[in-house]
Amino acid sequence: MSPIKPQNLKGFKDVLPAEMLFRDNVISHIKKVFESYGFAPLNTPALEYKEILLGYGDEAGKQIYLFEEPEGNQVGLRFDLTVPLSRVIAQYHDLPRPFKRYQVQPVWRYDKPDPGRFREFIQFDIDTIGTTSMMADTEIIAAMHESLSGLRLPHKIRFSNRKILNSLIMFAGIPETMGRHVFRILDKLEKQGLASVKLELGPGRVDESGDPIPGLGLKPPQIAKIEEFLGLPQRTRQEGLDSAANLFKDTPGAETGIREVAEIHEYLTALEIPDDKVIIDLSIARGLDYYTGPVFEAVLVDDRGGRVGSVMGGGRYDQLIGQFTGRPEPATGASIGVDRLVSAMQLLQDIQPRPSTADVLVTVMMPERIAEYARIAGRLRREGINAELYMGGEKSIGKQLQYADRQMIPVAVIAGSNEFDAGEVSIKDLDKIRREKIEIKDRKEWVKRKVGQVTVPLADLAVEVKSMLRAGGGTNLPSDH
Amino acid sequence: MSPIKPQNLKGFKDVLPAEMLFRDNVISHIKKVFESYGFAPLNTPALEYKEILLGYGDEAGKQIYLFEEPEGNQVGLRFDLTVPLSRVIAQYHDLPRPFKRYQVQPVWRYDKPDPGRFREFIQFDIDTIGTTSMMADTEIIAAMHESLSGLRLPHKIRFSNRKILNSLIMFAGIPETMGRHVFRILDKLEKQGLASVKLELGPGRVDESGDPIPGLGLKPPQIAKIEEFLGLPQRTRQEGLDSAANLFKDTPGAETGIREVAEIHEYLTALEIPDDKVIIDLSIARGLDYYTGPVFEAVLVDDRGGRVGSVMGGGRYDQLIGQFTGRPEPATGASIGVDRLVSAMQLLQDIQPRPSTADVLVTVMMPERIAEYARIAGRLRREGINAELYMGGEKSIGKQLQYADRQMIPVAVIAGSNEFDAGEVSIKDLDKIRREKIEIKDRKEWVKRKVGQVTVPLADLAVEVKSMLRAGGGTNLPSDH
Repeated sequence: MSPIKPQNLKGFKDVLPAEMLFRDNVISHIKKVFESYGFAPLNTPALEYKEILLGYGDEAGKQIYLFEEPEGNQVGLRFDLTVPLSRVIAQYHDLPRPFKRYQVQPVWRYDKPDPGRFREFIQFDIDTIGTTSMMADTEIIAAMHESLSGLRLPHKIRFSNRKILNSLIMFAGIPETMGRHVFRILDKLEKQGLASVKLELGPGRVDESGDPIPGLGLKPPQIAKIEEFLGLPQRTRQEGLDSAANLFKDTPGAETGIREVAEIHEYLTALEIPDDKVIIDLSIARGLDYYTGPVFEAVLVDDRGGRVGSVMGGGRYDQLIGQFTGRPEPATGASIGVDRLVSAMQLLQDIQPRPSTADVLVTVMMPERIAEYARIAGRLRREGINAELYMGGEKSIGKQLQYADRQMIPVAVIAGSNEFDAGEVSIKDLDKIRREKIEIKDRKEWVKRKVGQVTVPLADLAVEVKSMLRAGGGTNLPSDH
Repeated sequence: MSPIKPQNLKGFKDVLPAEMLFRDNVISHIKKVFESYGFAPLNTPALEYKEILLGYGDEAGKQIYLFEEPEGNQVGLRFDLTVPLSRVIAQYHDLPRPFKRYQVQPVWRYDKPDPGRFREFIQFDIDTIGTTSMMADTEIIAAMHESLSGLRLPHKIRFSNRKILNSLIMFAGIPETMGRHVFRILDKLEKQGLASVKLELGPGRVDESGDPIPGLGLKPPQIAKIEEFLGLPQRTRQEGLDSAANLFKDTPGAETGIREVAEIHEYLTALEIPDDKVIIDLSIARGLDYYTGPVFEAVLVDDRGGRVGSVMGGGRYDQLIGQFTGRPEPATGASIGVDRLVSAMQLLQDIQPRPSTADVLVTVMMPERIAEYARIAGRLRREGINAELYMGGEKSIGKQLQYADRQMIPVAVIAGSNEFDAGEVSIKDLDKIRREKIEIKDRKEWVKRKVGQVTVPLADLAVEVKSMLRAGGGTNLPSDH
């Protein structure tokens, strides 16, 4: 029989060790921040009943993997983490309120696969259920800011409030039912610019390919009022607030939205979240129809403050879960795009992730004495150092060191009969050698010259290795502080 | 419209926060041990092509969720992690050898759901691909022993070798083709006892319900030889080895199996793995047909050494991956049953897992000053203490403390206008109060008496809380050592 062709389904990918290690680190960093606010993890099954996945909506646009399981039930793979959360809230009557949960699991969408767009991807959702307090929204914004700061990612978090946009609709004299169409167009502001947005609000425009894009048909005075709103000064959170309050001073009902934004500003200040990282941006609408109050998004920015890409988005959705539970359940939450965050980090910080968990490769010069090498590796592990014993097919130490290089293992231990007799080991600081880009022309010569190599008594091995690892920084050791 | 009934599919379950936190801790502990040996993580997609899932076998017995996806491809949910690993090995030509990977992901099996038996469950697989060295098998056994020791779980790990069982077949004069049937029956030894096993090897028996179980039809001298083998003394690893070597001294080809067991014993000794925890048990066969050499299993034991249940099983399978790659790929590995491990731990250690990540609940006596309470929580978080700010609907501090009790939060912070004016906070050691089972008859009276409560300057808050948490042990703080 011919071998089966090994391949992934279109739109699906394996995550190999280097990327997994990097991604796991990012995820556990963010988890830790949210746990410090009292969020706790939840997992739900991959499969749900079809009727739960579809809710009261229709199938269109949701691109769910649906099928009939052997017992004849219509089931599907979850396409987000909000629907399973809503089901959990409705199903377990003794969950606390607020219920603060995070959930990190894959979701599946039968989407057009593009480069960088997958049909299976990890979603990291954070939600607080059961409180109308703006403190809940604030905590999610604050924890997201702390997460990105901890990952050393230059970012801005922008927030606004759907109620302020509703006031804009009233202020501009636009019928309420047209609001969602206006918001959809406003969401394009950053990408397309003001001129294009104004055309789409008004008569329509022609795109680059010559296709006509119909306009909303708003009148020039209405568009002028929207433009006035978009031009409001908001260099600090306080200025944004004052501008909005001034603009809407005669618009009935505008106080609620402004007060909610003001509360979040006050709480952010109490949590010492700086004004230049978490800002008010009155123009953001966030696509989803179900938002009812605060909306927020995190974007990574480059050196000049330019937008690299959105890595988190969310908002308050006080009406959604009630559809499942039959009683009101205020809620606010956000989704983090883990895959996008990970690729942005590797790009922005020029990181080549290590494919190995090992701090040390214990090489094997004399295979017949492998138990003694294992003993050395065991000694390192008991000191908290990740030590891999070489088990590949290469006999030469040079080749074994090449394996360490490929795996980006920072330190190698070498021992031959001289060392064994003397109760010593040689330690090679591979990371230092790589950092100093020592030119290696003749590997044999190099091994002989013992570049970056020290020989120490076995008893000093762990201490010496730890000091090399700390100097290099490329270590899995717990940090000193 | 009536609300949708919130429910899980039969055989599927949600993992709520208390169990998730506990499970995540167990998983990350085991990960850390395997990483110390140089194992690195891999993830693969939930969906695979049907032909990959079925391999060269047939559908029968594999109980895979298969369906046609919208593009018309036959696909299925993975039912184990060995098939995806084999695909990965065949698909990526630049993976190192050995390739040491762990993989912790759910698998799906359309099985008869039983209490405690689920159709979706987490599997934790560890495998080393590309080396025939017995050191690879040894490392998996050793790391598993370390993992269970670290979790303070009384356990035994037993190992043997398929080649020794093959020698037994020859020694007992049984045709080679009957070997797998003999092994299948030997696997029942611990559960059913020797008498029952002998009947199944011979004429057959009648089970409790009166149903006949056909026998293999071996002759009494053959069964006697098997019994002689099963009775071999093996109180220490060395004794087990010596017994087997003595029994099979005239059996052609028996040396290889014995030498492999001896090698693992030697390496375990080098790694300082004690003789009473990792033992030779010549009777174990481990069901799967594809094992070719060492086999091993971990069982939890009770105070008297009685078996509680198997939590890990594995072995060497040098022929399996070659079916995918078309070239030989020696391999050895094990699967850990995470769910079983987690329930056994909770049972054996009488643990009631905490549903909360918070070390401290900052109560809110004066809702109008919530920003000040948020400031206190922020101060604690910056000191590495997980602090939840109360956001529930209860106004009374007594009720807020009940919330902390339900969530098993160990410490509460209380501040009213007196404390605010004096720059102080009150701290309540809820964990201590619970430990000392202080009888609370009148909650108001209790709050007034300030049991287990100290009042300190705000500047001393974190230090005081840390000392309470350390005394209680119920903390998420990094340990001191």
